[in-house]
Amino acid sequence: MARLGSSPLAISLGDPAGIGPEVIAKCWDNRGRFELPPFVAIGDPRSVEKVWDGPIAIITDPQHAADVFDTGLPLLALPSAEDVLPGHPSVAGAHCSLDALELAVGLARSSSAAAVVTGPVAKEQLYAIGFSHPGQTEFVAERCGVASANVAMMLAGPSLKTVTVTTHIALSQVPQQLTSGLIESRGRATLRGLQRNFGIEQPKLAVAALNPHAGEGGSLGREEIEVIGPAIAALTAEGWHVTGPHPADTLFHEVARARYDAALCMYHDQALVPLKALHFDEGVNITLGLPIVRTAPDHGTAFDIAGQDKADPRAMAAAIRMAAECAEHRARNR
Amino acid sequence: MARLGSSPLAISLGDPAGIGPEVIAKCWDNRGRFELPPFVAIGDPRSVEKVWDGPIAIITDPQHAADVFDTGLPLLALPSAEDVLPGHPSVAGAHCSLDALELAVGLARSSSAAAVVTGPVAKEQLYAIGFSHPGQTEFVAERCGVASANVAMMLAGPSLKTVTVTTHIALSQVPQQLTSGLIESRGRATLRGLQRNFGIEQPKLAVAALNPHAGEGGSLGREEIEVIGPAIAALTAEGWHVTGPHPADTLFHEVARARYDAALCMYHDQALVPLKALHFDEGVNITLGLPIVRTAPDHGTAFDIAGQDKADPRAMAAAIRMAAECAEHRARNR
Repeated sequence: MARLGSSPLAISLGDPAGIGPEVIAKCWDNRGRFELPPFVAIGDPRSVEKVWDGPIAIITDPQHAADVFDTGLPLLALPSAEDVLPGHPSVAGAHCSLDALELAVGLARSSSAAAVVTGPVAKEQLYAIGFSHPGQTEFVAERCGVASANVAMMLAGPSLKTVTVTTHIALSQVPQQLTSGLIESRGRATLRGLQRNFGIEQPKLAVAALNPHAGEGGSLGREEIEVIGPAIAALTAEGWHVTGPHPADTLFHEVARARYDAALCMYHDQALVPLKALHFDEGVNITLGLPIVRTAPDHGTAFDIAGQDKADPRAMAAAIRMAAECAEHRARNR
Repeated sequence: MARLGSSPLAISLGDPAGIGPEVIAKCWDNRGRFELPPFVAIGDPRSVEKVWDGPIAIITDPQHAADVFDTGLPLLALPSAEDVLPGHPSVAGAHCSLDALELAVGLARSSSAAAVVTGPVAKEQLYAIGFSHPGQTEFVAERCGVASANVAMMLAGPSLKTVTVTTHIALSQVPQQLTSGLIESRGRATLRGLQRNFGIEQPKLAVAALNPHAGEGGSLGREEIEVIGPAIAALTAEGWHVTGPHPADTLFHEVARARYDAALCMYHDQALVPLKALHFDEGVNITLGLPIVRTAPDHGTAFDIAGQDKADPRAMAAAIRMAAECAEHRARNR
């Protein structure tokens, strides 16, 4: 178990109608087996009570989380304006999930929490209440005062870490949105993130090609020559250990994975297909480039199974553990 | 070991300067352990002698392969015009590899061989001698009188089979080259191939989406709605079991893989990234839609390690075993 000093991890419950409250409560149930440090959940206590029979310890100061952690699930109560039923997303639930996210980030910014773990939210409902960010990652970046090009969304499993340069856009938009500048800034955020969050002094970054066979010298696309290669050269010139562009199909087998600390991928599925093929139940989403540590389980609200005691808490547990480890690395190097 | 009657498998050595001769000889060495049926190699005997000390049994009639299989590596000799050194590709070697491929296909077409396994060739050298096909797959299709849109390149490993709709093109060309017609014809070749080669009576095909999150209802790309969906509907109307379009990132984990017999992917890396992440040393390339069985190991000539006794024969062994199994399935259903 990571030692974090007196500040607990702050975990937003996410949408109260999703599986967030259930998996977080199950993590507290299994805190010993999952080797989890003290944390405090943030959200509507009713959303936990509806799906879980265990003890809840309502607190008002996060510093008390460690004291009560053995007797009940520590919770900072942010009641929803209306009661929310599992599996029934609503505007009131969206407001509640956003308030919890905002408070969790605020606690981490003021060092009252060691790190933030975010439960899954429903983007459609958030958009309905005026949320203007593509996702929680960009919201957290803005609240931390960091431009979104300078943060990197990393997906991490036990044997693979991937980062995607372009994110949620149509595949046809990828070639035109891919620029040397964006590859460089995501690469830099990744390399610094590997140092700060994972304690890797000289991180090794492998950059994936965009085209099959890395473009075969230009005959299967010129982005490797004109866009990706120059970005790798620029990062290398800064002293970073960066290789590529590597053909993506031979970048993710066991022997190849041992050669780098993270793979920088050009588009969403290039990063997520190998990660989820190898580590479906254990993938953690971690935002690099922030002044705080923020992780999340790599799954959504799963409204279809909410409230049925079917949700698997392992990804949430992995997100909590990784947040603790990253906070520990940062504290050590402060 | 599969029972194949009297006809052996025909294996072209591939480029004599590549690792083909070495891995094929190593397969003969380990024929018991790898559970390989009788086969006959086709190519220049000198290319085998240069990299292997074992006994070669030169034969002139493939039907004799089984008789001599326990005493030496059966080989139909097609000497190269010039001596070729391992690791040194040449025009003479390219001619030799093409002659071997042509003979192997001819033997299978005339039922003198039960199936064809092709050793790796060097495309650059083949292009230099006027070879006008993108690869061996298209050459074999043409020799069999099948239009290339009606064949499908399948990559098969122990727990996953993938087929790619578009093949060796730049990623930026994928959205425009992807048509409902091409998805349908590749899908049909795949489904029939699963029946004929693998003996699956009612094959299940999962079709991957092109865009992240399968386009999220059109907001991240419209190909799922306008191109892929209609192709799935057309195949379903023919009575096939076809599902999708599925978000690619959740299509390849263990539980998902159990739901289908093959995944139809929209582009090269979408098919090859998960296959090689999971089954790097065991991937077999099998061409579906042909009147004959044709497999190949999923690796290249590896000129950089040719002649150094470093080449791993497991992928070639897997290709031989799969060719035998497919030939057996076809013989049973004839």
